[in-house]
Amino acid sequence: MTAFTSKDYAARMARATADAGQAGLAGVLVAPGPDLVWLTGYRPTAITERLTLLVLAVGREPTLVVPMLERPDAEAAAGAPALSIVDWRDGDDPYDVAAMLLGDSGRFGVSDSTWALHLLGLQRIRPENGWAGLTECLPMLRAVKDKAELDRLAAAGAAADCAFGDILTVPFAGRRETDVAADLAALLRKYGHEQVDFTVVGSGPNGANPHHEAGPRTIEPGDTVVLDFGGLMRGYGSDTTRTVSVGEPGEEVRTVHGIVRRAQQAAFEAVRPGVTCQDIDRVARRVITEAGYGERFIHRTGHGIGVTTHEPPYLVEGEEQPLVPGMCFSIEPGIYLPGRFGVRIEDIVTVTADGGRRLNNTGRELHLVA
Amino acid sequence: MTAFTSKDYAARMARATADAGQAGLAGVLVAPGPDLVWLTGYRPTAITERLTLLVLAVGREPTLVVPMLERPDAEAAAGAPALSIVDWRDGDDPYDVAAMLLGDSGRFGVSDSTWALHLLGLQRIRPENGWAGLTECLPMLRAVKDKAELDRLAAAGAAADCAFGDILTVPFAGRRETDVAADLAALLRKYGHEQVDFTVVGSGPNGANPHHEAGPRTIEPGDTVVLDFGGLMRGYGSDTTRTVSVGEPGEEVRTVHGIVRRAQQAAFEAVRPGVTCQDIDRVARRVITEAGYGERFIHRTGHGIGVTTHEPPYLVEGEEQPLVPGMCFSIEPGIYLPGRFGVRIEDIVTVTADGGRRLNNTGRELHLVA
Repeated sequence: MTAFTSKDYAARMARATADAGQAGLAGVLVAPGPDLVWLTGYRPTAITERLTLLVLAVGREPTLVVPMLERPDAEAAAGAPALSIVDWRDGDDPYDVAAMLLGDSGRFGVSDSTWALHLLGLQRIRPENGWAGLTECLPMLRAVKDKAELDRLAAAGAAADCAFGDILTVPFAGRRETDVAADLAALLRKYGHEQVDFTVVGSGPNGANPHHEAGPRTIEPGDTVVLDFGGLMRGYGSDTTRTVSVGEPGEEVRTVHGIVRRAQQAAFEAVRPGVTCQDIDRVARRVITEAGYGERFIHRTGHGIGVTTHEPPYLVEGEEQPLVPGMCFSIEPGIYLPGRFGVRIEDIVTVTADGGRRLNNTGRELHLVA
Repeated sequence: MTAFTSKDYAARMARATADAGQAGLAGVLVAPGPDLVWLTGYRPTAITERLTLLVLAVGREPTLVVPMLERPDAEAAAGAPALSIVDWRDGDDPYDVAAMLLGDSGRFGVSDSTWALHLLGLQRIRPENGWAGLTECLPMLRAVKDKAELDRLAAAGAAADCAFGDILTVPFAGRRETDVAADLAALLRKYGHEQVDFTVVGSGPNGANPHHEAGPRTIEPGDTVVLDFGGLMRGYGSDTTRTVSVGEPGEEVRTVHGIVRRAQQAAFEAVRPGVTCQDIDRVARRVITEAGYGERFIHRTGHGIGVTTHEPPYLVEGEEQPLVPGMCFSIEPGIYLPGRFGVRIEDIVTVTADGGRRLNNTGRELHLVA
């Protein structure tokens, strides 16, 4: 797996600019964050109030606006040979500098996580331009992965699977959630992740809060525990969830787990090109609703993954985007019983020519731990 | 040092709302980030595309809009008893939910790091409202620290000073910059920091890049090394810089260091209520310019510090804000000689009734290391 080169970044920038043109936009503006990493390989040391902005204007060369004192860092980025760099100095108005790179009018896509401070600065200087969130105007820009990206996502998934295999052998009962979370983080790093983004250990009633991370609660015999973990490996994300039982589970836990497993399997089997994102959500939701737990499946079925662990496409009611080969996203239905326990099962899935392929392949049964 | 309570957060929210009213704003909108932590104690597990927004509208109760699946986390925040929580569910339009909390018109201050995606969502639903970056419309909201905040900043500064004292005893020559950076990070944690934000180790020519972090370069005898490090302790920041020499320095290093030290001292001595931010910058810059290095002092003289390590007030040409007792900011002039070396000296300083007080108190001479 070789590193991306300035040619790769040049091709991505060219595609983003072309897609913008086709969507009727004047271009794309990208502040530091995952879009900038994907387009240029550049990740400033810190994201601050000092404006850094990639301007991809239709018909012009890519240009990166940077604070003068960060110019050496920008010049060292892998994608730097494919763009021009313009700097500004403390005391200048950086929005003036950026505005000169925009055309006289037209609507620009703006990367989602661009600070409001910067968007307002641009809006102040260029009231005649229009602006749109990048995932609203070009949601599919990063959604279809090429071969090199799929290889990285598959490798990250395989590493997360190795971490899960090992976590089954550590003691759960009598230890805190944060202890098991630390084990998971260490295992992700051991298997090659350079960044750990989340290590959810939701034991007993904490499992009923889907975004519970890990707390001081001591795990008890008989607990159901939701393990949801992931991060970045070679710049691409992993995200997988399995639910385990500390010793023999009760009847209801088995029943609920079986429902979630069937929902996850049905959604996976529904994946193929042309099916819409909301269709996948509906398939999972129907299984859970028909089993009587519809009100307890309180989130969407999944989200895209790539250089971030949350990105388009979103598998949610109302999202009519059809699936396309190369898309990668999570399928992660769950059932949450407040005050008692939760169950979630999650795999990353990529769309193939005629179906789907899972990038997580550990068993989806209710695993027993000690 | 006791934790902040819901009463503290209630008082901060009340002041923010009152300040907004006085500034002619209809209120303040705050997405996850330092402003939300300061106002409510709430820090979501992750900052994502799902809208979380504190709405402080003049004449209304504070209300926090959260994704339904993060509601339990929000309810557990220290400031939660002082606000109402409204949730939305995947598939809803969260901007509709937030818009109902705004008045029919009026201009809102928006926290700097709010995602453009969210601001654009609000602008779409409420085209009749106006919007302004929070540090542009209420720059002084967090700038004047109260006693409890000053105590925390002083403690963080003292901890950073301890870390610097210890780093003088580690070997530099023959080790990589990243090794010394790891030592600095470990020392900051040892002395109580829960978060390390930056550990700049700029050796030899790398010191001439003010934002160089730490790289694989092996430090050599005779190198000048810029050490700039800080993070958060009990939620408040540290940020200090000293320049050291690996063995005896050359004549020019001594000269340049002496100039920077005089500039830093002169700027510190100029601090007192009523003097403007740009005055402090001018005092430091004048010393360096008169010594012939004006073109090599390529950044502003300083920035505020509190729950973040970069915030108003900024000590920069054009900033006419007068200093007020309780403000805290860095004073950090530097001289950067490309391809050769850099020198920077930085202390956090707070404004007192009749002058300034340094929160960093290690010696500002050119320290020798081995």
